[in-house]
Amino acid sequence: MEIRHPYLMFLGDAPDQLAAKTANGVKVWREDWCLGQFRLPGCNADLKLPDMSIEEAAAAGVKTVILGVANRGGFMPDSWLVELEKALDLGMEIASGLHTRISTIPSLAEKAKAKGLGLYDVRHPTGNFSIANGKRRPGKRLLPVGTDCSVGKMFTALAIERELHNRGVKASFRATGQTGIFIAGSGVSVDAVVADFISGAVEELAPANDADHWDLVEGQGSLFHASYAGVTMGLIHGAQPDAMVLCHEANRPHMRGLPEYPVPSLSECIPYYLQAARLTNPDAQFVGVCVNTSSLDDAAAEDFLKKASDETGLPAVDPIRNGVGAIVDNMPL
Amino acid sequence: MEIRHPYLMFLGDAPDQLAAKTANGVKVWREDWCLGQFRLPGCNADLKLPDMSIEEAAAAGVKTVILGVANRGGFMPDSWLVELEKALDLGMEIASGLHTRISTIPSLAEKAKAKGLGLYDVRHPTGNFSIANGKRRPGKRLLPVGTDCSVGKMFTALAIERELHNRGVKASFRATGQTGIFIAGSGVSVDAVVADFISGAVEELAPANDADHWDLVEGQGSLFHASYAGVTMGLIHGAQPDAMVLCHEANRPHMRGLPEYPVPSLSECIPYYLQAARLTNPDAQFVGVCVNTSSLDDAAAEDFLKKASDETGLPAVDPIRNGVGAIVDNMPL
Repeated sequence: MEIRHPYLMFLGDAPDQLAAKTANGVKVWREDWCLGQFRLPGCNADLKLPDMSIEEAAAAGVKTVILGVANRGGFMPDSWLVELEKALDLGMEIASGLHTRISTIPSLAEKAKAKGLGLYDVRHPTGNFSIANGKRRPGKRLLPVGTDCSVGKMFTALAIERELHNRGVKASFRATGQTGIFIAGSGVSVDAVVADFISGAVEELAPANDADHWDLVEGQGSLFHASYAGVTMGLIHGAQPDAMVLCHEANRPHMRGLPEYPVPSLSECIPYYLQAARLTNPDAQFVGVCVNTSSLDDAAAEDFLKKASDETGLPAVDPIRNGVGAIVDNMPL
Repeated sequence: MEIRHPYLMFLGDAPDQLAAKTANGVKVWREDWCLGQFRLPGCNADLKLPDMSIEEAAAAGVKTVILGVANRGGFMPDSWLVELEKALDLGMEIASGLHTRISTIPSLAEKAKAKGLGLYDVRHPTGNFSIANGKRRPGKRLLPVGTDCSVGKMFTALAIERELHNRGVKASFRATGQTGIFIAGSGVSVDAVVADFISGAVEELAPANDADHWDLVEGQGSLFHASYAGVTMGLIHGAQPDAMVLCHEANRPHMRGLPEYPVPSLSECIPYYLQAARLTNPDAQFVGVCVNTSSLDDAAAEDFLKKASDETGLPAVDPIRNGVGAIVDNMPL
C-alpha cells in the first residue's frame, strides 16, 4: 500500500471538529499534501483548507481522497457514496480510516477495479505477515511509549522525525495507526493484525536499514492499559528500539476508558518498558520524556516538566511548547 | 461454538506420530469421548483407538469428526475430502484444527448448510469480541505461564482441573488453542484473534463465576518469547489470574524457534509475570512450578525439581512424574 498524494480531505457531514481528528492530524503534519477539504451540508468541522468539490479536486491534481472522519453509526451515507463514486470516475483513489471497509462496497469496488484504482482501508491490514524472528537488524529505531493510550506518541515520533531531518539525519516515520498511515502514505494498523503477527508486522514495517538511519516507529497503547497492552508488547518486541521516549499527559484522571485504573508514575513505567524492550534489543535506553501539558498554564507546565526530569533523570519536554530538541540531543545518533 | 462429542479422530494419511500431536492430546485427556480413529493408507500415526470407517463411526454414535492432524502443504487432499463429505452425509459434524478453513471448501460448506450441520475451524475465531474492560469479576482463575512456548502449560491446566475435580472443587478448563478446544469442546484460539481484542476475548472465555469456582485458563506463548509475547500479555490481563504456575522444560537449549535467545531463569520470570498480572489482579500470586523433566532420569529430575523449588520458594513438580497435588495444596482454594 502506497497512498499517493496530494490529498483531498473528505469531511462529509462531520458533526463536529472532533469527528475530523484524523483529517486534522494529516493537515498538521502534511499540509503540503492537503490541497483542499470537501464538506457536505451539515458539516461542522473545518480544517481551514480551501473548500473544493470533487471535480475541482480532480482538476487541481488530487490523487487520493482521504476519508479521515468518523461516520455516524458505522455506515456509509448515500450522500457520501455519490461523491466517492464521482471521485473514482474522475480517476482519484480513495483511502479510508473508517471501520466500514470501503473495498467491500460493491459500487466502489466495481468502479475501482474497472479503472485500476486503489481503495485503501487503512484500519484493515491486508498483508500476509510473518511470525517475528527476533533477529537483530541494522539501522536505529526510536519508539515512543506511554503511561497510557492517547498521550501524544504519534506526535512525538513525527516531531522527532522533523527535528532529525532539520539536523540532516536520515529518518523515517513508520506508521502503526490510521492517522499515521495517511501521514506516511503507508504503514500497518498493528492493532488490527492477527495477534500472532504483531511483532512480525512491525519487523516488516521497520526493516533493516543503514546503520545511521533512524526509524521513528509510531507507538500504540500502553503496557499499563488493561485492554491494549498485548498490542504494545508485540510492538516493542518487533521494533527492537534503541531509544524510547516516555509519553504522558499531565493531570489525566485515570487510564483512558478505565475509570478503575490509575495512571502509573513515570518512574514506575521506565523499568517495565526497559525490561520488555531489552528482550529483543539489550541496548534499549530511554532518551527523554514528552508530556502533553495542555491542561496547565506556562508556570505549572514548567514546574511539571522540571519534576518529570528530576524523577526520571531524562530531558522532559512538552513537544508543542518546547519542541523535541532536548530529546534529540540525548539520542545516540 | 460447542463441539459435540463423542468424536472420531481423523488421522488421514498422517506421515508420523508427531503429525497427530493434537489428536493424541485429545485422546489423552478425553479418551471417553474418542470412540475411534480413521486412518487412510499411508497413515503412520496410531492413537491406539479402534480403527473405524466413516460409516462405522456414524453407526457407533459419533457426533463430530475431529481433524487433529497436520495436512501436508496446507491443502486438503481429495482422499480426505471424499471421507469428510461422507461424514456430513451421515449426519456428523466436523471440527478442524487445520490452517486451511474447512468452512470455505465449497463441497463441505454446501452439504453442511443443507443439513444444518456445523463445520468448526477452531484455529479461526469467528466471534465478535469486545475490547477488554479490565473490570474485576468474581470467580477464581489460574493461569499457567511459561519460560518459553510449548513447555506444558495446557497439560498443567488440565492436570490441575482433574485434581480439583477429584477434590470436589468446582473447576473448568478454558481452552485458548486448538488442542485445548477439542478437549474442552469450546474455546477461542487467542493467537488468531485481532490484536486489539486479545484481552477482551479472554474476559469472555473465562467470565464471572461463583466465588468458589476455578477457571483453569490455558496459557499461550511466553512473555520472554520475541515472537509471541503480545499474545501472552493480553492473555494474562484478560485472565486476571489469582494464581499462576510457572512452566518450564528442563535442559531446553534456547527459546523455541529462536536460536539466539536463551531461556530465562525461573527467578527472572517470576517478578515480570507478577508485574504483568497484578495490573488487572493485584492479588495475583505464583502457586507452583511445573517442569517437563522428560529429558532427565529419575535422580536428575528430582534434583532439578529440588533446585527449582529452592530458587523460587514454590512447590515444583513434574506433572507426569509427580502429579500436581503439591501445587493444588498451595492454591488459595
